[in-house]
Amino acid sequence: MHDKQRPVRVGIVGLGTVGGGAFNLLKANADEIARRTGRPILVSHIGSRRDHPGCDTQGVKVSRDVFAVVHDPEIDVLVEVMGGTTIAREVVTQALESGKHVVTANKALLAEHGNEIFALAEARGRFVAFEAAVAGGVPIIKVLREGLAANRIHAVAGIINGTGNFILTEMRDKARDFIDVLKEAQELGYAEADPTFDVEGIDAAHKLTILAALAFGIPLQFSKVYTEGISALTTLDVAYATELGYRIKHLGLTRRTGDGIEMRVHPTLIPCDRLLSHVDGVKNAVLVLADPVGSTLYYGSGAGAGPTASAVVADLVDVVRAMQDHSPDARARVPHLAFQPDALNDTPILPMIQVETAFYLRLMVEDRPGVLAEVTGILSRQGINIEAIIQKPAHDAGIIPVIILTRPVLEQHMNDAISAMASIPVLREPVVRIRVESLDA
Amino acid sequence: MHDKQRPVRVGIVGLGTVGGGAFNLLKANADEIARRTGRPILVSHIGSRRDHPGCDTQGVKVSRDVFAVVHDPEIDVLVEVMGGTTIAREVVTQALESGKHVVTANKALLAEHGNEIFALAEARGRFVAFEAAVAGGVPIIKVLREGLAANRIHAVAGIINGTGNFILTEMRDKARDFIDVLKEAQELGYAEADPTFDVEGIDAAHKLTILAALAFGIPLQFSKVYTEGISALTTLDVAYATELGYRIKHLGLTRRTGDGIEMRVHPTLIPCDRLLSHVDGVKNAVLVLADPVGSTLYYGSGAGAGPTASAVVADLVDVVRAMQDHSPDARARVPHLAFQPDALNDTPILPMIQVETAFYLRLMVEDRPGVLAEVTGILSRQGINIEAIIQKPAHDAGIIPVIILTRPVLEQHMNDAISAMASIPVLREPVVRIRVESLDA
Repeated sequence: MHDKQRPVRVGIVGLGTVGGGAFNLLKANADEIARRTGRPILVSHIGSRRDHPGCDTQGVKVSRDVFAVVHDPEIDVLVEVMGGTTIAREVVTQALESGKHVVTANKALLAEHGNEIFALAEARGRFVAFEAAVAGGVPIIKVLREGLAANRIHAVAGIINGTGNFILTEMRDKARDFIDVLKEAQELGYAEADPTFDVEGIDAAHKLTILAALAFGIPLQFSKVYTEGISALTTLDVAYATELGYRIKHLGLTRRTGDGIEMRVHPTLIPCDRLLSHVDGVKNAVLVLADPVGSTLYYGSGAGAGPTASAVVADLVDVVRAMQDHSPDARARVPHLAFQPDALNDTPILPMIQVETAFYLRLMVEDRPGVLAEVTGILSRQGINIEAIIQKPAHDAGIIPVIILTRPVLEQHMNDAISAMASIPVLREPVVRIRVESLDA
Repeated sequence: MHDKQRPVRVGIVGLGTVGGGAFNLLKANADEIARRTGRPILVSHIGSRRDHPGCDTQGVKVSRDVFAVVHDPEIDVLVEVMGGTTIAREVVTQALESGKHVVTANKALLAEHGNEIFALAEARGRFVAFEAAVAGGVPIIKVLREGLAANRIHAVAGIINGTGNFILTEMRDKARDFIDVLKEAQELGYAEADPTFDVEGIDAAHKLTILAALAFGIPLQFSKVYTEGISALTTLDVAYATELGYRIKHLGLTRRTGDGIEMRVHPTLIPCDRLLSHVDGVKNAVLVLADPVGSTLYYGSGAGAGPTASAVVADLVDVVRAMQDHSPDARARVPHLAFQPDALNDTPILPMIQVETAFYLRLMVEDRPGVLAEVTGILSRQGINIEAIIQKPAHDAGIIPVIILTRPVLEQHMNDAISAMASIPVLREPVVRIRVESLDA
């Protein structure tokens, strides 16, 4: 029992919201965690340029130089929660090279440099755990890598950015403008001073890159994600979507078709009888369509100190449990990207013009005879079928909104149709288009 | 690489819906599964008294005597999907004694005999995997044992019987009677010829027993689950609940309080702004309230060949991955009941009279002056606070329904109040009471 009793020694690099949360959680739930692991987990060295006002680090070695932690020979596992992709990359690389396991919450680092990092980890017989990188406290990484391991996965669709979902929920419930809600989100601490990563979909694209690799057994390919933000959405379209029985969500979606794999982040109309459409506020949820399990959904808090720390420490528990297998190097039991490294494939990522979705269109036109005929004629010539069409009463003097829901159509054909619509003389604003997903199995 | 390439040999005992589903899934997704495990999984021996019309067992040894599979020395892992608790118990026990790992979907067996079975497995250095035992294809066992391992869990609440949820959904959506919908469920194959296990909550109680053990680190204690079925529910109460902004679900709930642990299965009013209230038809969902992750929810198909096979084969993948750790006996990396066997505790299970919930009450009374005063007086004397009260127009000639929502109250006090109400002279039917859960964190 001696070996079992020796604490696992952990170094934490970065003592911000997530690092502080993990440090405090390991203390607060130490008894409950030790009942599960049979072995204490001890934070023995912290690397941080700043102190965390909410962390009592007495008795713990603290270094301002994060690399002092990376090279501390006492440490078994390094927790990288500093963020960024430059120093963090060095930290993770050097930790692996010095024989440490790594736990990280850094989706940007993994989405952009994960292939090299995982290859290094495999070469060194160490593992990089990253449950906290997607959907915070919701254990979606474990679900995809292990829980659904018997399935052929068809699609993964997620609300994976809480900031964006908070903004969209407020826009819908209170008919508030994007800018107005964004300001509140910043005041509440939900959004960064520079909100680009969240509202333009970059953060969601990082996470989607990871989900797609895990679902389909492909390398991480962040640069191929189609990304469209929510900053151009208007309360008008949010209200029309509601009226039509939909909710607008900022969805990250990856799907396998006969031609390749779609990876895309964009505002999306979802029918309101889908569970995903009821995921509101800062919550996250991920829907997985797979054979033979069908649709399963995973819901919870995607950000914040507590939920993210829950995932970081779950990874630590996983590492500790793996180290009890008595194997010399506790090699990763589960491949980093769910599939064996030599079994990843090069299925092409589809460019957006080859993606098929239904569309919501809004045209603001002058109230003249023949306008509807002209619009529907253009759609018809592109082979686009109409699911529903609504002409609303005049909005501003003489300007009427025409709302169209189409059947699924290739993005290329919709691009062509919208180009053609630009020449309609009575069109008073650029056509608004938002993709629609039914999320059927 | 020689050892890695040798197939893992699996025996399946029971070739019904689940066994046939697992057999076919291992064939259908063999490539995708091998990409994940790096090692083929081969069904080499089936024990079944009957053939399965949908399974092509050519090339596989089939025995009518299930114990021929149990004692087949070629087999690494035994899949027990025959059901029942008598022969299945012998099968699992003898398989472990002969050095095999076991995968089972048998919630009744585990709920009633799991403590002995897990102790035997631990003594023999083998493991018993049981993801399919609760919520079918939803990997809730893995979530509780691993994904949320950093948390102190407060409560787990689940819709964990698809048959019951289908019946309640139809009763609500179509105002149909219980008996009427039950017949249809039997015709559709959702309900057994003897529906007792499903509609009286016994199946849910088996599953809740397992969830409670995993959540709190207590032994399996099936006999202590309070269980109340849905067969007495009326369309009238289903409709009133909807009118009040609630849905009635057959909920399994286990919660840790300062005094002990609640384990109960009963019809429950859930506010309709909770995601769980939107889980309809044969679907399952489990809500976990834990610190620091908050509320997380897991949703999907809880029964049927495909979803259950998904869980059985995920367990096989887990076993195969553990066997690649090169350890001599692939000892369970994760304790069977989430907590180390020597860390289980004897927190008392609370008798129902010590449980506090809010209540929905329906009284059918003669329309006489002073009735409301009498009813509210009884509640008041028991210290029961009223959240809402609705007196409906006369139902039958001169009989009025009085609907009361109470604040949370001890079951014992509600029992006393209802006893006292029996003496109200104008009460024309026994008081209907249904518990209410807000499912807040």
